[in-house]
Amino acid sequence: ATVLADASAKIIDGKLVAKQIREEVGVEIARMKDAIGVVPGLAVILVGSRKDSQTYVRNKKKACDAVGIKSYEVNLPEDASEYEVIKHIATFNDDPSVHGILVQLPLPHHMNDENILNAVSIEKDVDGFHPVNIGRLAMQGRDPFFVPCTPKGCMELLHRSGVEIKGKRAVVIGRSNIVGTPAALLLQKANATVSIVHSKTKNPEEITRQADIIIAAVGVANLVRGSWIKPGAAIIDVGINPVDDPASPRGYRLVGDVCFEEASKVAGAITPVPGGVGPMTIAMLLSNTLDSAKRIHKFK
Amino acid sequence: ATVLADASAKIIDGKLVAKQIREEVGVEIARMKDAIGVVPGLAVILVGSRKDSQTYVRNKKKACDAVGIKSYEVNLPEDASEYEVIKHIATFNDDPSVHGILVQLPLPHHMNDENILNAVSIEKDVDGFHPVNIGRLAMQGRDPFFVPCTPKGCMELLHRSGVEIKGKRAVVIGRSNIVGTPAALLLQKANATVSIVHSKTKNPEEITRQADIIIAAVGVANLVRGSWIKPGAAIIDVGINPVDDPASPRGYRLVGDVCFEEASKVAGAITPVPGGVGPMTIAMLLSNTLDSAKRIHKFK
Repeated sequence: ATVLADASAKIIDGKLVAKQIREEVGVEIARMKDAIGVVPGLAVILVGSRKDSQTYVRNKKKACDAVGIKSYEVNLPEDASEYEVIKHIATFNDDPSVHGILVQLPLPHHMNDENILNAVSIEKDVDGFHPVNIGRLAMQGRDPFFVPCTPKGCMELLHRSGVEIKGKRAVVIGRSNIVGTPAALLLQKANATVSIVHSKTKNPEEITRQADIIIAAVGVANLVRGSWIKPGAAIIDVGINPVDDPASPRGYRLVGDVCFEEASKVAGAITPVPGGVGPMTIAMLLSNTLDSAKRIHKFK
Repeated sequence: ATVLADASAKIIDGKLVAKQIREEVGVEIARMKDAIGVVPGLAVILVGSRKDSQTYVRNKKKACDAVGIKSYEVNLPEDASEYEVIKHIATFNDDPSVHGILVQLPLPHHMNDENILNAVSIEKDVDGFHPVNIGRLAMQGRDPFFVPCTPKGCMELLHRSGVEIKGKRAVVIGRSNIVGTPAALLLQKANATVSIVHSKTKNPEEITRQADIIIAAVGVANLVRGSWIKPGAAIIDVGINPVDDPASPRGYRLVGDVCFEEASKVAGAITPVPGGVGPMTIAMLLSNTLDSAKRIHKFK
């Protein structure tokens, strides 16, 4: 772990953890292939030609190749109909060589995200965005088929850094369907005492300062300052925000929702941006796809 | 509102509010019947012969009769099979005169609650216990078909007592699937800043004392003492716990999760036990059944 000159916090190296997980997934995939001849399959549906989405999809494909997951890709034009997308989902739902289905977001504005995401079989919903999966995540005594990749990655970073969760105070900043809400539900399932801070919260600094664990997922550069942090707290920073930086060749650099310079002097452990949560998302997608193939083929 | 001699808290009269809601529901049912000739129908399935469950079912039937909801009842023997219960659910799912289906809990031990509750069509799940309904409740930009009756009743008591929720600190004590968890999700949807306190929470008193709104649903008699309460807080007490009382003709009396005597001196508003949340649950069931019939028949 890197240590800054005047920083006390342990740096949680997401790149390293993600690499370990990809290796573990690769080993399991090889073991399953040897034992029962099955290779996990992930289908990705991309609608339109957004540059960022194309990059994400390409990176997912590369990551699949590296661990031995077969990837299937469908590219539809920007003006495709909702019906066409759903038809492709239905085909993948019925295809036994596909164990995970992912619709790259955001979808074009003329489409209803809800209709499309609900069409994915909950048993192949490796993104974990289906309301049934969120509902099961929220309920005691129930378990979702899949946990959304980014919050699952946050939990994995906490676990693998030896951060105790049970009985601890946790604050989640942000309540998106994709990160904040499922992260809060996961912390709660792990027996933390959870508070969710959001745009309508009147005293976010005071509440955050009570937390032993902070997950920041709000998309506001450097929102969480040193004064918000309880000494020794563990901080998982999900934000990836571009800020102007004339000194950088690209004219900008990426920073988190947490002011790293200040926080790393107070916190006990913190993820950097980039290199923290970012690499974990794809690693968890690979892990979810493997889990799905194992479950469908009853392979332990 | 009743005021105790040395109490400052406004007493939230759930009996009165529930009566108002039943009257409002009755008026709406009459209006719908006049306009389109449709009467809402509620089907209740009771398995076994638990005395308490029989009483609940009888009370629900009476409440339906009083507002003009047609009730359908199925009584199955204790040793009925899961398949038989699900067959009855399927029949009600397909019956256009039934708009709400309720399986009285607890079910006999040999049955899997999850299989049975999942069989209820989410469009007739007036108890709101289906994971899809819980998932939608948890998600931003989604709405459940139904909100579980008891937590919905808690929110209604807050609304009708003029308690502001947006931006306030709320603490929910207890995290059951039936009350605590959906109550926390509802408070969060109403833009409160919510913390959930549970059996693994280390400093429940300290956290609860920060709350402007407390919903206690943990089933421990008099757990929440005066010292736990921020002066002026609004308290909704869901607990109904029998405690020994030789002075009572029955040998016991019912108390809440909150020590009423102490709390009523500190709080701004509080529900009594009995006569607080209790009567609201059935009122909300009637309201959910009416809403279902209106939605199915597109009646505004």
